[in-house]
Amino acid sequence: MFLLLADMLTVPDLIRKKRDGGQLSDDEIKAFIQAVKEKTIQDSQIGAMLMAIWLNGMVSAEIKALTREMMSSGEVMEWPDEWKNFMVDKHSTGGVGDKVSLVLAPALAACGCKVPMISGRGLAHTGGTLDKLESIPGFKVEQSREQILEILDSVGCCIVGQTETLVPADRVLYALRDITGTVDSLPLITSSIISKKGAESLSALVLDVKFGRAAMCKDLESATELAQMLVEAGNGLGIRTAAVLSGMNGSIGRCVGNSVEVIESLETLKGNGPDDLMELVTTQGGLLLVMTGLVSDLSEGRKQISEAVVGGAALSKFQAMMEAQGVNSDTAQRLCTTNTDYYSILRKAKHQLELKAPADGIVLEIDGLVLAQVLHRLGAGRSKAGEPVNHSVGAVLLVSIGQRVTKGKRLFLLLLMV
Amino acid sequence: MFLLLADMLTVPDLIRKKRDGGQLSDDEIKAFIQAVKEKTIQDSQIGAMLMAIWLNGMVSAEIKALTREMMSSGEVMEWPDEWKNFMVDKHSTGGVGDKVSLVLAPALAACGCKVPMISGRGLAHTGGTLDKLESIPGFKVEQSREQILEILDSVGCCIVGQTETLVPADRVLYALRDITGTVDSLPLITSSIISKKGAESLSALVLDVKFGRAAMCKDLESATELAQMLVEAGNGLGIRTAAVLSGMNGSIGRCVGNSVEVIESLETLKGNGPDDLMELVTTQGGLLLVMTGLVSDLSEGRKQISEAVVGGAALSKFQAMMEAQGVNSDTAQRLCTTNTDYYSILRKAKHQLELKAPADGIVLEIDGLVLAQVLHRLGAGRSKAGEPVNHSVGAVLLVSIGQRVTKGKRLFLLLLMV
Repeated sequence: MFLLLADMLTVPDLIRKKRDGGQLSDDEIKAFIQAVKEKTIQDSQIGAMLMAIWLNGMVSAEIKALTREMMSSGEVMEWPDEWKNFMVDKHSTGGVGDKVSLVLAPALAACGCKVPMISGRGLAHTGGTLDKLESIPGFKVEQSREQILEILDSVGCCIVGQTETLVPADRVLYALRDITGTVDSLPLITSSIISKKGAESLSALVLDVKFGRAAMCKDLESATELAQMLVEAGNGLGIRTAAVLSGMNGSIGRCVGNSVEVIESLETLKGNGPDDLMELVTTQGGLLLVMTGLVSDLSEGRKQISEAVVGGAALSKFQAMMEAQGVNSDTAQRLCTTNTDYYSILRKAKHQLELKAPADGIVLEIDGLVLAQVLHRLGAGRSKAGEPVNHSVGAVLLVSIGQRVTKGKRLFLLLLMV
Repeated sequence: MFLLLADMLTVPDLIRKKRDGGQLSDDEIKAFIQAVKEKTIQDSQIGAMLMAIWLNGMVSAEIKALTREMMSSGEVMEWPDEWKNFMVDKHSTGGVGDKVSLVLAPALAACGCKVPMISGRGLAHTGGTLDKLESIPGFKVEQSREQILEILDSVGCCIVGQTETLVPADRVLYALRDITGTVDSLPLITSSIISKKGAESLSALVLDVKFGRAAMCKDLESATELAQMLVEAGNGLGIRTAAVLSGMNGSIGRCVGNSVEVIESLETLKGNGPDDLMELVTTQGGLLLVMTGLVSDLSEGRKQISEAVVGGAALSKFQAMMEAQGVNSDTAQRLCTTNTDYYSILRKAKHQLELKAPADGIVLEIDGLVLAQVLHRLGAGRSKAGEPVNHSVGAVLLVSIGQRVTKGKRLFLLLLMV
């Protein structure tokens, strides 16, 4: 019933140690994760351990060990030697209208990086990169290890779902965290994120840690703490890791939803991107180019990323990636020309609702959380893993913070299916 | 997947509330226990909740509600009206050589009480009353509700195991506490003990809360805290409840083990009991007689119990109880005569080892914990629920604390089967 370690520590012994505020050794954490992977630990014991970690926390050495053991619970990707310095990825802790990956992955590929981007799906109010991409007819996010290697070779970037063989321990722990009230624990968040990135065998990683009303971290302080943990854990796996802290009160860009965010991403790749999105893309991309050694400083990195986006090289990569991931070549091409009629390809919402200013005034703030929650209820997101999402539901903001508006001015469009 | 309460609180909501140090309402505790009983809550969630309770504790109102809901998760016994004021029981938090129940139950019956004593089995270093009684050939601890009623009617006391229908929620929680490192939580201990006593529909209950080296509570302070919780929870169910705090460094009486404790109990019932055992029996019995109103003060209560033991009335009740619980009437009678050859009836240990004083000196202390642990390893106890125990393994102490001994003096006998 109990897992016996070399020194005869049982699973209840491990739980009691963490319960009493003790520091688990590398071997003890290894035993715990192995037991999770091999299912020799009972769910009740995992629940108790997760709660003990949530309440008593973990020191840096424990988080490093937990991250490493979770990574090693499954397959760890291997790359050709000549790629090894250029394997990069980014991770965002989740925002509203966060379409950075869709622009950044092809921009990095255009700058000579290899980007094996393993993304997630949306849950609760946060959208997921995979859901957004699946609003493009034919786009296949499920790709085998061999296909990923092939796409990276021919295109340089891919955006795919997690395979069954990567970090199986995280799959178990994540599902149980969700139902045991232990999701928002810094050590558990950190090990979950970084173990998956570790399994991608990256050279460099940038983390976009968001703070504010519409983010998981509500203030800069907690975001800074999480960022430090993430960077330490990433470096602990030998990945050059940096974090960017960015505000998340409203939305990134002006479009929120699945299809509309693809449209805004494509417009950005055509040189018409909103400033806030471009700032996030060039900062994160610039940092990665510095960390891989492809450029010597951040301003040069930013410049190269910006040129790749504005000059169309990133758009070509996005087009090639779409084709490599199953999109019909005619469709991919039409999405990437100027003046595209997007709704001849993407599914359009049945109804459109305009929200207008009830009086003269100035836009003081935009509440991204409320916006996302409304869209979530309208079908843009899911409440439980596995539920379908409605790709055409979304919102388009028509004003900016600080803008003076008169009564009757259109504030935003709500795209509805009902 | 989640249990929905009237106000839409889910199980994860309840867990988070306790995790964050909140106080669960009566309805929330009811929902939790119902979910445990009906298996609509997952084991991982129970594990997380148990750990949150272990770490954040519970206030008195929560413990009362938890105790009541656990009790109500199963059958609650019903007694004839004329018995209702005289239904009594005791519970000990567990000691070494603790045979109080074997003497007290028949003594109380002899004084006019009804004693539906539901006892437990030994686990780890602590012995169990049921295991001790089963060293008597033919003694059946499993008795149906109807049989219990019959024995109480004809004899006045029985000592039986928990039936399947009593407090099913405790069965689930206890098994999970055992493997999740959440056994030694005062609210969980309290609700587990008192819910089972509540299901006996008692009029009065006395708790023997032990403290010291060989007890669960290592000091008087923690024992006092537990005693207060237990008394409050008992009174919360409408049972007149009192607690006795007693030291537990060595052993109660001079015999530790299953058969040897039955022998010492029978000797006590024949008037030859050790002082410490008699003190515990008369104090606890006396308190119960006061609480039922059968006597007006403790000294009168002690006296009546003492007379029942010394005068042989309790022995007759014990003999009748053995017969009512399946022991052959000839066997029961032979066990209850003077100068019994106990080992013509009880199984004798194969080997006997004498431990002698290595030098002249004075006995300063007797370590009951070490003694119990040695006997446990020799087979007197069990490490996992359901394991068999060896009834004949035991120890007999031959010296007392403060006694002067010379080198070679026999300190104790170890009764072995190996």
